[in-house]
Amino acid sequence: MFASHPYGIKITQALNLAEFPDSPADLYDPIRYILSLSGKRIRPVLVLMGAKLFGESDLDRVLPASVAIEYFHNFSLIHDDIMDRAPLRRGKETVHQKWNDNVAILSGDALLVRAYQELAKCPNQHVPDLLTVFGRVALEVCEGQQLDMDFERRASVSEADYIEMIRLKTSVLLGGALQMGAIMADAPSAQQELLYQFGEAIGIAFQLQDDFLDVYGDPADFGKQSGGDILSNKKTILAIRTESLVRGDDRNEFNLLLSSDQMAPLEKIDRMKALYLKLSVDQYAEELKVRYMELAYSKLDRIEVDETRKQELKDLAQALLDRTR
Amino acid sequence: MFASHPYGIKITQALNLAEFPDSPADLYDPIRYILSLSGKRIRPVLVLMGAKLFGESDLDRVLPASVAIEYFHNFSLIHDDIMDRAPLRRGKETVHQKWNDNVAILSGDALLVRAYQELAKCPNQHVPDLLTVFGRVALEVCEGQQLDMDFERRASVSEADYIEMIRLKTSVLLGGALQMGAIMADAPSAQQELLYQFGEAIGIAFQLQDDFLDVYGDPADFGKQSGGDILSNKKTILAIRTESLVRGDDRNEFNLLLSSDQMAPLEKIDRMKALYLKLSVDQYAEELKVRYMELAYSKLDRIEVDETRKQELKDLAQALLDRTR
Repeated sequence: MFASHPYGIKITQALNLAEFPDSPADLYDPIRYILSLSGKRIRPVLVLMGAKLFGESDLDRVLPASVAIEYFHNFSLIHDDIMDRAPLRRGKETVHQKWNDNVAILSGDALLVRAYQELAKCPNQHVPDLLTVFGRVALEVCEGQQLDMDFERRASVSEADYIEMIRLKTSVLLGGALQMGAIMADAPSAQQELLYQFGEAIGIAFQLQDDFLDVYGDPADFGKQSGGDILSNKKTILAIRTESLVRGDDRNEFNLLLSSDQMAPLEKIDRMKALYLKLSVDQYAEELKVRYMELAYSKLDRIEVDETRKQELKDLAQALLDRTR
Repeated sequence: MFASHPYGIKITQALNLAEFPDSPADLYDPIRYILSLSGKRIRPVLVLMGAKLFGESDLDRVLPASVAIEYFHNFSLIHDDIMDRAPLRRGKETVHQKWNDNVAILSGDALLVRAYQELAKCPNQHVPDLLTVFGRVALEVCEGQQLDMDFERRASVSEADYIEMIRLKTSVLLGGALQMGAIMADAPSAQQELLYQFGEAIGIAFQLQDDFLDVYGDPADFGKQSGGDILSNKKTILAIRTESLVRGDDRNEFNLLLSSDQMAPLEKIDRMKALYLKLSVDQYAEELKVRYMELAYSKLDRIEVDETRKQELKDLAQALLDRTR
C-alpha cells in the first residue's frame, strides 16, 4: 500500500540493507522470508511521518526506529499466525506452515530482539523515551492478542470489549509508531500524546474498515473471498452489533446461522447479510468508523505545527480508510 | 542454589515486588508462575557480582539489570520447553503443559518485553551499552537453541560443534550477566571483556558438569533419575566423545545401544556406562571441565582489581562446579 510511497521505498531499501547471518539457516531464513513478503509498510511509514510533522528533515536519522517498528510488526505476525493456525499470510505460506512451529517460535523471538537492536541504534538521547513507548506498546499488543483468543471462546463480547481489544491489538502500534517519530523530532510530550491519540483512533477506524471490507469488499480488490468472517463466526463489529440487536425470529435465524455447519457457504453469507441489512449494522459500522476518524482529526487539529505539514498524515488516513482492500 | 545467598535474597525480593497486571490472566499468570518456581538465580547474582567486582557499592542501582537477566532467562525457558516438549521444569509442570502452547508463546513474548523494560530502568548513561550486550547475547541464545535442535536431527556432532552450541545456548548469558554488572560499575571495556570471558568459560564448564552429573550424579542429590541423557540418546560430551573413539566391537555395541528401544532402561544405562569407563570418557569430560575452569581463572587473574574483591566470584565458580546437582 505504501510500498511505492517515497517513504515506503526508503524503508524497503533499509530493510534490504539489513544483514542477517546465513547460519543457523532455520533461525534466519524465516526472518528474511517474512520481511520479503511485501506488506503495506504502514507502521514504519508512520514513524517517518511523525518525525517529519515536527520538522525533522533528516529522515535517515529516524530510519532505525522505523525498521524497529516493522521488525516488531513482523515478529507479531509470525507468532500470531502460529496461535491462529493461519496457513497463509499476504497470499504466501506462513512461517510455521513453511517450516514448523518451533522454527516460527524461535525466529520470531530473534526478530523481536533485532527490533530492539534497531532501537538501540537511534541517537542515545532518544533511546530511553523510545524504549518506554515501544515497550508499553509491545506489551499492549500481546494483551490484545490474548484478548482476541479469549473472545473466541466466549459466547458473547460487548462492543466496548471489542473496541478495547482492537485498540490493543492493532491501534496502539500505529499510535506508537507516530509517537516514536515525534520523539526523534524532539516534539513536546503533550504534542507527542496528541499524535499518539491520532494514530490510535485511525487504527480503530482502520480495523472497523477491515471488518466491513471482509463482507462488502469486492473480492477482486480485497484479495480474498468476501464473507470469510461470516463463515468462521468471527466476532467482528458487524456480528457483535447484530448480536446486541436481534430479537424474536431474527434471533432464531442468527443463532441458526452461527450453529449451522451444514449450510452452503454462499447461503450462510447471504442470509447473514440480509440480517445485517435489516438491522442496519453495515451502516452502523460505517458511522462508527467515521466517528473514530473525526476523533482522529480532532487530535491532529490540536497539534501546533503549520497546517501544511499535516497534509501527508491526512492523505495517509484518507488512503487507509477509503481503501477497498 | 543462590536463592539463600544474600544477593539471591535481594533478587527474590525485587522479583516479588514486580507488578504484573491481573488481566488478561492467561498472559500474566504464567509469568508469575514461572518466576515463582525457585530457580538457582545464578544469572541475576552474576550481574550483582560483576558490579561489585568493579567497586559498585549501591547494588540497588544494579537490580533492574539483574531482574532483566532473570526475566530473559525465564522467557527462554518457557519457549525452549515448548520446543523440547518438556513436561516438567524444576519439578513442576511447564507453562505449555499447565496451560497450552499459545499461552506459553505469548506469555514468553511478554516476559521478553518486560526484560527490556527493566533494562530501560537502568541509569540512562548505561542503557546503550547494556542494550548492546543484552541484544547480542539474546540473539546468541536463540542461535544456540536452534543449533541444539539441529543437532538432534544430525547423525553425528563434533566436539567443537557441541562446545560452540553450549557456549551460545548457556555460556554467553553467564558472561553477559557479569559484563552488564561491570558496565554499570563503569569498568573499562577491556576489563569488561575479561570478565565476560570468565563467565563464558565458567558456563561451558558448568554445562559439561551437567552432562557428567546426569550420568554420575546421585539421584537423591540431582533431583532426577540418573541416566536420562543416555536413555534419550542425547548428544552430550560423553556421547560425542564415545562416538569419536569407539572402534570394532565397541562400535557395534554403541550403535546397538543407540538403536535399541526394547532394552530395559537400567540395562541400557549400565552397558553405556561400561563403554564410557572402557574409553575413559568420564575422565575426559572431567579434564575438559577443568581446562575451562582454568581458562576462566586465567581471565579473572588478569582483571585489575584488588584480589580480595575476586573472592566471591571464585567461591561462586567453585560452588557451581563442585555441585552435585
